[in-house]
Amino acid sequence: MATNGAPHPTGPGVKSNKSKFDPNFTEHVVGLMSAETKPRHREILTSLITHLHDFCRDVELTQEEWIIGVNYVNAIGQAYQKNRNEAWRVCDILGVESLVDEINHTVVTDVEHPSQATSSTILGPFWSPETPFRELGASVVQDMPKDGQLTFFHGVIRDVDTGKGIPGAVFDMWQASTNGKYDVFDPENQTRHNLRGKFKTDENGKFWFYCLKPTEYAIDTSGPSADLLKIMGRHPWRPAHIHAMVTHPDYIDVTVQLYPNDDPYLETDTVCAVKDDLLLTFKPVENEKNGATLDVEYDVRLLSKKYKPDSTMLKQNANQNKFD
Amino acid sequence: MATNGAPHPTGPGVKSNKSKFDPNFTEHVVGLMSAETKPRHREILTSLITHLHDFCRDVELTQEEWIIGVNYVNAIGQAYQKNRNEAWRVCDILGVESLVDEINHTVVTDVEHPSQATSSTILGPFWSPETPFRELGASVVQDMPKDGQLTFFHGVIRDVDTGKGIPGAVFDMWQASTNGKYDVFDPENQTRHNLRGKFKTDENGKFWFYCLKPTEYAIDTSGPSADLLKIMGRHPWRPAHIHAMVTHPDYIDVTVQLYPNDDPYLETDTVCAVKDDLLLTFKPVENEKNGATLDVEYDVRLLSKKYKPDSTMLKQNANQNKFD
Repeated sequence: MATNGAPHPTGPGVKSNKSKFDPNFTEHVVGLMSAETKPRHREILTSLITHLHDFCRDVELTQEEWIIGVNYVNAIGQAYQKNRNEAWRVCDILGVESLVDEINHTVVTDVEHPSQATSSTILGPFWSPETPFRELGASVVQDMPKDGQLTFFHGVIRDVDTGKGIPGAVFDMWQASTNGKYDVFDPENQTRHNLRGKFKTDENGKFWFYCLKPTEYAIDTSGPSADLLKIMGRHPWRPAHIHAMVTHPDYIDVTVQLYPNDDPYLETDTVCAVKDDLLLTFKPVENEKNGATLDVEYDVRLLSKKYKPDSTMLKQNANQNKFD
Repeated sequence: MATNGAPHPTGPGVKSNKSKFDPNFTEHVVGLMSAETKPRHREILTSLITHLHDFCRDVELTQEEWIIGVNYVNAIGQAYQKNRNEAWRVCDILGVESLVDEINHTVVTDVEHPSQATSSTILGPFWSPETPFRELGASVVQDMPKDGQLTFFHGVIRDVDTGKGIPGAVFDMWQASTNGKYDVFDPENQTRHNLRGKFKTDENGKFWFYCLKPTEYAIDTSGPSADLLKIMGRHPWRPAHIHAMVTHPDYIDVTVQLYPNDDPYLETDTVCAVKDDLLLTFKPVENEKNGATLDVEYDVRLLSKKYKPDSTMLKQNANQNKFD
């Protein structure tokens, strides 16, 4: 039972909010969990309850503010539709998806590597398990928009430790068209698999293909997630990006979003998913044999699975649940 | 922009999760708030984002677990109906309503009081702004259930500092019937205002009336809030209680729930709202003039509004929003 809420004595200069309120209350709530509670549930809920209570005490949340929060959580779920997951979006705006991605893809090894593995960033909702393999040198641009800029994209998928190219690795890429839409959400302008392709590296670990220079787009600006952006004084724009999931059976897979290094939204990405090693330099070219006006080179560095033998394709599994 | 997620060096014995992950990420997300953000919004969101990120790092939340959380938040709102507020219930189970109540009703004064003011606890969803005044000595039991135990309830509403009774104070009480239901949710068995009444203290601060001995009831056991109880290995029972809101224009109001001191659920109340000074002793009596078989005496101690001149009826305002 909680103690009676009487103010507790504080020493001179002691300003802790905890000491002002019942110091046993959080422990009491955590202690309500019984022997039936699974260890991992207990660990997560203990931390969640503790942080939630500390948050309320830290800001001395008023009842009106708490009710706004209650109504907001209800509104998130009420706005839920197939292909509209507001809880997911709110997490993105608060940086939670990006942080969870980092937590699950930080590999700490005891070994000094000559270079760093390519950083992971969030998958986003638009990856497709059905993207076709294409020949090296093919174009993913099935439907060229009027304002599209054809780009020759090439690079090497390398082993972090040896620096050598990895043959047979897969660079599975997808991007939005210049109207900010992905193929499946834009049937009037795009055929299926437009701006998507899987490419397998050659015997030297090289891959090359044609795509569009990516362009910025705004996330949906209706609903509770947009209200949060507004309260925070934030814009709804994502920097332009090309997605890629890079895999090989012997290496820890990495999912990236690659951004033009001169994009105006790099610092203020709505979903907080930009990392310094994921930037691309687009160089103008002339008389390219297939008409590309831009050239970009990007190498991916993968870490051997020996450092994390239980590494699995978590993101793909995760994505399956997104639109349940 | 966030830094590239490379592992940061940790000294010997340093095990902080923060040091394992990008130490600048939380600051980056907080920093996205712009000059348009109102100061209180900034304060609340800074604390919320920091605690949310620390929670994810502390438990090293996996992507599957995060998606379970996303789906859970969506499910809470999807279960919302008029008179069914799952976000509110989840807060109750996690102790948040009770904590917010304490935060908003802890009055810290520089003065030594000879006694403590009566503790505040949560209002709950069943208070009515339309409860009628009744004469001192009247019964709130309009519809006596077969298994009801008529109780004579009496006490004094006192000033914390002087110990003297406060004339003209209002003891506004409500309780469930023995089937666990309040009048408005039980039209087949209860007439309007059954088990509700407002009583004004006499010139000595005394009040007295007849009610039922309260009985335990379980909260709704369907929906996401019940899933949370199950995961925590907790029962859905609330200890038996009588609600009261005690008010006087010159005093800080207090809302209480009063519990039989031998109730089996005092230690494990589902909504974490029991405090040690809110316990009642029910004494058997014989040949009581109106047929009561139990007698209970409870004094309420109110603190003068001089200690908190801006004290307002926050809870009543709060309640108005509950079933919007």
